[in-house]
Amino acid sequence: MLRKNSVINYGMVGGGPGSFIGDVHRKAAGFDHQAGLVAACFSRDYEQTKLTGEELGLELNRLYKNYKEMAEVESARQDGIDFVSIVTPNASHYSIARTFLEKGINVVCDKPLTIKIAEAEELVRLSREKDLLFGVTYAYTGYPMVKQARQIIKKGKIGEVRMVIAEYPQEWLASPVEKLGQKQAIWRTDPELAGISGCVGDIGSHIENIVSYITGLKIESLYARLDTFGEDRSLDDNAALLLKYNNGASGVYWCSQVAIGESNGLRVRIYGESGKIEWEQESPNQLLVAYLDKPLEILEKGRDQLDPSVGDIVRLPAGHPEGYYEAFANLYKSYISALIDKKRGKNIKEEEHDYPTVEAGLEGVRFINLTVSSSKTGKVEYF
Amino acid sequence: MLRKNSVINYGMVGGGPGSFIGDVHRKAAGFDHQAGLVAACFSRDYEQTKLTGEELGLELNRLYKNYKEMAEVESARQDGIDFVSIVTPNASHYSIARTFLEKGINVVCDKPLTIKIAEAEELVRLSREKDLLFGVTYAYTGYPMVKQARQIIKKGKIGEVRMVIAEYPQEWLASPVEKLGQKQAIWRTDPELAGISGCVGDIGSHIENIVSYITGLKIESLYARLDTFGEDRSLDDNAALLLKYNNGASGVYWCSQVAIGESNGLRVRIYGESGKIEWEQESPNQLLVAYLDKPLEILEKGRDQLDPSVGDIVRLPAGHPEGYYEAFANLYKSYISALIDKKRGKNIKEEEHDYPTVEAGLEGVRFINLTVSSSKTGKVEYF
Amino acid sequence: MLRKNSVINYGMVGGGPGSFIGDVHRKAAGFDHQAGLVAACFSRDYEQTKLTGEELGLELNRLYKNYKEMAEVESARQDGIDFVSIVTPNASHYSIARTFLEKGINVVCDKPLTIKIAEAEELVRLSREKDLLFGVTYAYTGYPMVKQARQIIKKGKIGEVRMVIAEYPQEWLASPVEKLGQKQAIWRTDPELAGISGCVGDIGSHIENIVSYITGLKIESLYARLDTFGEDRSLDDNAALLLKYNNGASGVYWCSQVAIGESNGLRVRIYGESGKIEWEQESPNQLLVAYLDKPLEILEKGRDQLDPSVGDIVRLPAGHPEGYYEAFANLYKSYISALIDKKRGKNIKEEEHDYPTVEAGLEGVRFINLTVSSSKTGKVEYF
Amino acid sequence: MLRKNSVINYGMVGGGPGSFIGDVHRKAAGFDHQAGLVAACFSRDYEQTKLTGEELGLELNRLYKNYKEMAEVESARQDGIDFVSIVTPNASHYSIARTFLEKGINVVCDKPLTIKIAEAEELVRLSREKDLLFGVTYAYTGYPMVKQARQIIKKGKIGEVRMVIAEYPQEWLASPVEKLGQKQAIWRTDPELAGISGCVGDIGSHIENIVSYITGLKIESLYARLDTFGEDRSLDDNAALLLKYNNGASGVYWCSQVAIGESNGLRVRIYGESGKIEWEQESPNQLLVAYLDKPLEILEKGRDQLDPSVGDIVRLPAGHPEGYYEAFANLYKSYISALIDKKRGKNIKEEEHDYPTVEAGLEGVRFINLTVSSSKTGKVEYF
Repeated sequence: MLRKNSVINYGMVGGGPGSFIGDVHRKAAGFDHQAGLVAACFSRDYEQTKLTGEELGLELNRLYKNYKEMAEVESARQDGIDFVSIVTPNASHYSIARTFLEKGINVVCDKPLTIKIAEAEELVRLSREKDLLFGVTYAYTGYPMVKQARQIIKKGKIGEVRMVIAEYPQEWLASPVEKLGQKQAIWRTDPELAGISGCVGDIGSHIENIVSYITGLKIESLYARLDTFGEDRSLDDNAALLLKYNNGASGVYWCSQVAIGESNGLRVRIYGESGKIEWEQESPNQLLVAYLDKPLEILEKGRDQLDPSVGDIVRLPAGHPEGYYEAFANLYKSYISALIDKKRGKNIKEEEHDYPTVEAGLEGVRFINLTVSSSKTGKVEYF
Repeated sequence: MLRKNSVINYGMVGGGPGSFIGDVHRKAAGFDHQAGLVAACFSRDYEQTKLTGEELGLELNRLYKNYKEMAEVESARQDGIDFVSIVTPNASHYSIARTFLEKGINVVCDKPLTIKIAEAEELVRLSREKDLLFGVTYAYTGYPMVKQARQIIKKGKIGEVRMVIAEYPQEWLASPVEKLGQKQAIWRTDPELAGISGCVGDIGSHIENIVSYITGLKIESLYARLDTFGEDRSLDDNAALLLKYNNGASGVYWCSQVAIGESNGLRVRIYGESGKIEWEQESPNQLLVAYLDKPLEILEKGRDQLDPSVGDIVRLPAGHPEGYYEAFANLYKSYISALIDKKRGKNIKEEEHDYPTVEAGLEGVRFINLTVSSSKTGKVEYF
Repeated sequence: MLRKNSVINYGMVGGGPGSFIGDVHRKAAGFDHQAGLVAACFSRDYEQTKLTGEELGLELNRLYKNYKEMAEVESARQDGIDFVSIVTPNASHYSIARTFLEKGINVVCDKPLTIKIAEAEELVRLSREKDLLFGVTYAYTGYPMVKQARQIIKKGKIGEVRMVIAEYPQEWLASPVEKLGQKQAIWRTDPELAGISGCVGDIGSHIENIVSYITGLKIESLYARLDTFGEDRSLDDNAALLLKYNNGASGVYWCSQVAIGESNGLRVRIYGESGKIEWEQESPNQLLVAYLDKPLEILEKGRDQLDPSVGDIVRLPAGHPEGYYEAFANLYKSYISALIDKKRGKNIKEEEHDYPTVEAGLEGVRFINLTVSSSKTGKVEYF
Repeated sequence: MLRKNSVINYGMVGGGPGSFIGDVHRKAAGFDHQAGLVAACFSRDYEQTKLTGEELGLELNRLYKNYKEMAEVESARQDGIDFVSIVTPNASHYSIARTFLEKGINVVCDKPLTIKIAEAEELVRLSREKDLLFGVTYAYTGYPMVKQARQIIKKGKIGEVRMVIAEYPQEWLASPVEKLGQKQAIWRTDPELAGISGCVGDIGSHIENIVSYITGLKIESLYARLDTFGEDRSLDDNAALLLKYNNGASGVYWCSQVAIGESNGLRVRIYGESGKIEWEQESPNQLLVAYLDKPLEILEKGRDQLDPSVGDIVRLPAGHPEGYYEAFANLYKSYISALIDKKRGKNIKEEEHDYPTVEAGLEGVRFINLTVSSSKTGKVEYF
């Protein structure tokens, strides 16, 4: 269903029956009619892979029993996949991503990139060495108003940043649902699959990424407190951090998976010397902007003139809500457009292709590790 | 990309370059990986049709110069389209829909269904005679919380409805943008293309449909006032109505395309003897519910337990916004699922397939015509 | 407790035990330490008058058995009251106000001013003839942001007004609470005490007044529908109107006392050729303003620079909520300041003393009567 | 203006021309017609005291040149003041309060109670020794919905508290307004007058008080970071804290006076094992409550049934906003009612008289001091 000379084919590892994020990736990748899913290893259980593959109309000979076979076969095919999407639990990202990179296949990987810092560093090294495109799906940076926030700050409209107040509360682990067989809860509370952190790894890392994306600031140091409220739970389900950035600004982050009444409350407020921006994921199409001595302003996607770099990803007129799928699709759109450019031999300029890269993924892994470490030692950790 | 035994192929009339709604229909129809676009006449200008067709990867021999040829050829092919989506300006809906119905092809048509009541009645008659499925894309009834509102009322939770207060203000025609070449504005303000009403036809009809869908009430009579504020504009761009329903309830509707500061403000409030529901399209994932002697409740998609009939169209967890595309996709999902059932020889039960039918389309056309008529005569009009 | 040379003493008729509005008037009148209550006839039952009088520390010899005696005695005293506040049910306003005017005493009267148009006209005539100050307590025009809205429109910032959409829903009569002995409900649903209208007289008249105050427009004609949903109720408890103003603008008003989930939802939206204002009584310290091609603006009392004529009634810094009492106190402040000027022999200029006058009261009575009449006849009524 | 047998007379120290809080105290104390201001030392400058005194109608012989004289004379009068309100800058609270206590006069003092912990302890001791009533005006605990929040938690409705997330951002010191002669800014940024902390002392202490009031929890330890962003400013104007409570709960506090776009944003969220409450000072008449497996609830003053202990301070029907003055008046109402009881020889039970006492004031001073100390040392401080 693609124009012949721009077709991008991709494969997927993970995303079988019961996976929430696999379907999101598929809808997002296909949203703009530019990429088609042609190969997959959806599950460790081959029957499950075949089930999902059949539902999606994939050809049987491109449904694989394991990812190694898939990387090998696809890299050998003339019409092999252009990139692979990795949507498995965190702990397996590294080895899967590494395998595809080694076979010369571009990678999109869910976040957090890896469990250990050294693993993430190795993926950065490898993707550079192989000259491959590596996207990490921090979905929330795909929203138009997040990009607008970034431009406002970049252009100095709120002055030097002084404070960042960011939070990401959820309620879904307030009860011990992992004991009741909830699949998402089981793997996300299991250190074997999720890594050294639960809440910070899963959602705290989104705060780190979106703040870094919007402000361009680097974290200099952090002081963290992790809590585990869930009964018999081994990983953190609530965390608070105080931070210092490279420009002297101060930050407060709070994330929680046991905050009853909160659905998916990622919220970022950034205060500068002359203004403020505020964005909430649950009302993603608005952006609150304040300046000294002016009334508060509510910018709205589709209504207000946005920065030219943002405008072209607004898909619908004012007041027609764009949501999570569309944000996700924007990441893929940008990644796929870079891939098309690359295939056509163009020079890829990162600033023209606005998706989170493997370097952003590495920063996230560092953040998670330093947060856990600060909480353990009770000391400030330096980046 | 479809499971072999459930594949649905569709065609499109309209939706060429510059069309907003054509792309929405395509994304919506393909959202759940169940339907593929295979044939089209995107434009009266064949070059435009070829351009869009190529972008979308359609085969050249299924790009048609006009819709009649398309209906003829497709109905003759063994692998011809299962249904056609009509996304042209209002005035041409009738003849196009009729043509495809006559050739035995199922139809999805944008709203308003037709210009004249008699035309709409003819489409109702014809689709029944031919036993074809005919969907009308009143997109807003695709939102989960609209369906939840309907169930709340159906189950009597707010008692007999007393008042309906509904509105749909927009600002996009506050300036005479049709004079500046804005394509959407040009046809929507042109009686030749839009029909006898501007604002009521375009968005007032959404109020009529969504209220009817949620409450199940029939309009008994209405008293309307249409205004035309735009300079040199011939159709209405603002309208207010007082209504009576078959159960004795009273209604107030207001729609406007010149209401500065309003993006796409469809909002419905329904007051019963013992409660109230309120829904706003720009925050579609919440539903406000009030009962006497209880605190206000905010129901949220993905968080709160919804009626079983609604739950299965919620696609994402709590706090992950679903928007306009997803609502639209829900209509297509329901329509396509009915079509699959029909192809498999199942008996189609309307109550299991929840999409606006050609009868709802006819009600909309009646509403538009009676509204215009009441405003002209200054008299109450009876349904 | 007052500066000797500016002391204003006032009396009250009505406002005995169980009265909600009497206490509001007393707090409002005394809020700025400029007026003291010294005389009263709080109730037809003298025992009740004495009870309330004692609680408030009034001297026994200035507690009166009926308002006629009070008017007579107070007008004869050298230190008699400067004005009287009338806070009785609607039907008695006229004779009480007339009595005090005839005795040369200034009047503040609750709304609606009278039951009949002729009565209101007589009060206008009499207060002019006697050169007395007559305030009518349409409390909502006392809010700073309402005054700001008026200035924005006066200065042409949103251009010529095109549409007015105003509403005032409440829920408190959704059940037949008058049957359960609720005192407020009993008199407000009783034609003998409330007059010819329930809902329109009580709260619809607030819509008329605030729209007139903010826009400066005159109603040219109206078409109204009154409903009575409450069991065994004789007066309206829900009403909707379509209006035309003297500049050609269109209006929609809705008021209700049976709208479950609504507390005291007065809300006014005014759309002009180039902008919009929106104000809600339940969030009174903000004002939403929209202009074409600019982000929405939220003006806030105490934060944003308001029109100089408004600024001096803002009492508290930004974010310190001012509410209903303060709005009410602003009316009294303005009225008392006019009275002080008058006592000092200054020429009273209405534009410097911003309170609703007897003329505004007359407009309100006309509005109520025409609304009832239109609903009865099913015809448009002209002002 | 008071019933003879319940009259309470009070005096004031501070609150002269230009004082914001002095007028608030006067309106609040007089709101319920139970207390009259009869004596004062409004300013160190006697001319200023006389000016304000004359405006308020006080007798010249009860306007004092300094607070010592006032304490002496008033304590010797048979009709001397029942209590004194102290509304001077922080640094002088101690010596003034002590002087009046020593003379046997009850005290209301603005917050923070004192600069040093030892001073606050001495006031606690002295007021106990003398058996005097000592109120500290943490105004925000006077709001009905704050009291409702407290009752909800007290009754275990949200289970054991796990996390407290509270903030209090303002913007008014974002620019160095103290250099431009703004009186409020001058003293609040001056260590001589404000004490060892700017932001934490002024508003951070409100967070500490309101959280303690609502939850009943004691702070066990805190880790704080203070910032000073204002040019040439010596005290903190931004602060963030991580806390542990005596039940194991975790807390995050943030306060700021340089947060552009924020007016007076005190906001408290408390998460328990089975629910959540959220209250915002700028929308004080609502309370958001969440429970697991139930829709979010919005409780509203005047609409919803509140705890009996709260209900009687709701003054107005639903939807009639009560604001800052009324909250403040509620503290005074409670304090004065305790005083009346005491004068009548009743046993004062603290739980029946719901105002912040000198002990709460001491907790606040401890909090401020430990916060400053933690920020200096970079270490956790224990209560």
